[in-house]
Amino acid sequence: MLAVALPEPVSIIGASGALGFGLAVRLARAGCAVTVGSRDAQRAEQTAVRARDAVPDSLVAGLSNEQAAARNELLILCVPFRNQSETLHNLRDALRPGQLVVDCTVPLAAAIGGKAVRTVGVWQGSAAEQAQEMVPEGVTVLSALHTVSAASLSDLGHELDEDVLLCGDKRADKRRVAALIDAIDGLRCVDGGRLEMARIAESMTALMISVNARYKTHAGVKITALPDELWPAPS
Amino acid sequence: MLAVALPEPVSIIGASGALGFGLAVRLARAGCAVTVGSRDAQRAEQTAVRARDAVPDSLVAGLSNEQAAARNELLILCVPFRNQSETLHNLRDALRPGQLVVDCTVPLAAAIGGKAVRTVGVWQGSAAEQAQEMVPEGVTVLSALHTVSAASLSDLGHELDEDVLLCGDKRADKRRVAALIDAIDGLRCVDGGRLEMARIAESMTALMISVNARYKTHAGVKITALPDELWPAPS
Repeated sequence: MLAVALPEPVSIIGASGALGFGLAVRLARAGCAVTVGSRDAQRAEQTAVRARDAVPDSLVAGLSNEQAAARNELLILCVPFRNQSETLHNLRDALRPGQLVVDCTVPLAAAIGGKAVRTVGVWQGSAAEQAQEMVPEGVTVLSALHTVSAASLSDLGHELDEDVLLCGDKRADKRRVAALIDAIDGLRCVDGGRLEMARIAESMTALMISVNARYKTHAGVKITALPDELWPAPS
Repeated sequence: MLAVALPEPVSIIGASGALGFGLAVRLARAGCAVTVGSRDAQRAEQTAVRARDAVPDSLVAGLSNEQAAARNELLILCVPFRNQSETLHNLRDALRPGQLVVDCTVPLAAAIGGKAVRTVGVWQGSAAEQAQEMVPEGVTVLSALHTVSAASLSDLGHELDEDVLLCGDKRADKRRVAALIDAIDGLRCVDGGRLEMARIAESMTALMISVNARYKTHAGVKITALPDELWPAPS
């Protein structure tokens, strides 16, 4: 018998939003135990019900963001940029050393009433680096999932076929996150480099929004000319 | 008899460099009359000979950058960021209203002794917008070809299969440049939006350099979920 490793359990902070919900149902369908977090525990439970309706027999639970954050080693942060600081501030006591936080925040100028095809400058360089500064010591932030359309993720009938640029400082952490995201059919994680490269990956969202507006689509990104094995085990 | 439109003649400023030369041979192979420019006219002639050797029966001439710039309506600027200002300064008298300049410059930090996976901030927002500020009135700058590997272009045995993000303020100009670049087998131009979006497209070069370092390849970018017709004629 072949032992098939299921993806690691994951908590999604801000799962009532479009991106968070889309990731929740895609990961749930991949066999992942997903805890969906929301500011309001009741809203989280409603989101969990919606996700279980979309993916029958899936393991999706709903909790407040704080409870969700405490529950798993692996978290995905899916909040709008304007809420990122406040959310991380509120999670300070819930987070603990050793956890990995995959930040999907994009500093779109929409957060300050500007255009969604523009970004605002984050002092630390990127929303992900701002997150790394805000989490308790020992918690590691990675950055990913910027160019994947929330609408495409949520529509389970839509066949995904695109890449996810993953930025982070430690190869082992990236490999672990890649194993989670690669469990979603049609997504492939590509190592984008150190966490500081998140500033570029984040800004690509604004470019995708520009492309989407022109072509009335939900575009994604693929990286060409890569080897077959993108996350070789350490030798 | 079917009339097949040949690509517009084009001048490549800085064609002795890797990107410029790669574009020269690819465009020449597509049937384009290419004028390769270099600071030194003799160096330009050597580059033209190299290009004609690579693509027999092609129309490639070599001239100084100034003469090359004056020769065609469509120019491609392929100089390192550290030379961009000086080059445009020297071309002031050669350029004339109505010309289109496709700027491929990327403000990599390497220009100031930093890393190639980092960029420097350009006051105008992007190298392309800096170029737009520097060219004489009536000359229009577009931005493209940031993520296409110079090495892959120069190696005519390599089969290209990637996209080119094209940024510019006027759709008609972009359509004209797209017709040129699309003439290169395996390249497809995608409308990335206004010229100001060049800051994102330019920074993607640094991300590609990071990906290339990790995977020892010459990666490119493709945009997914686009319609078949990317440059519909105006209705």
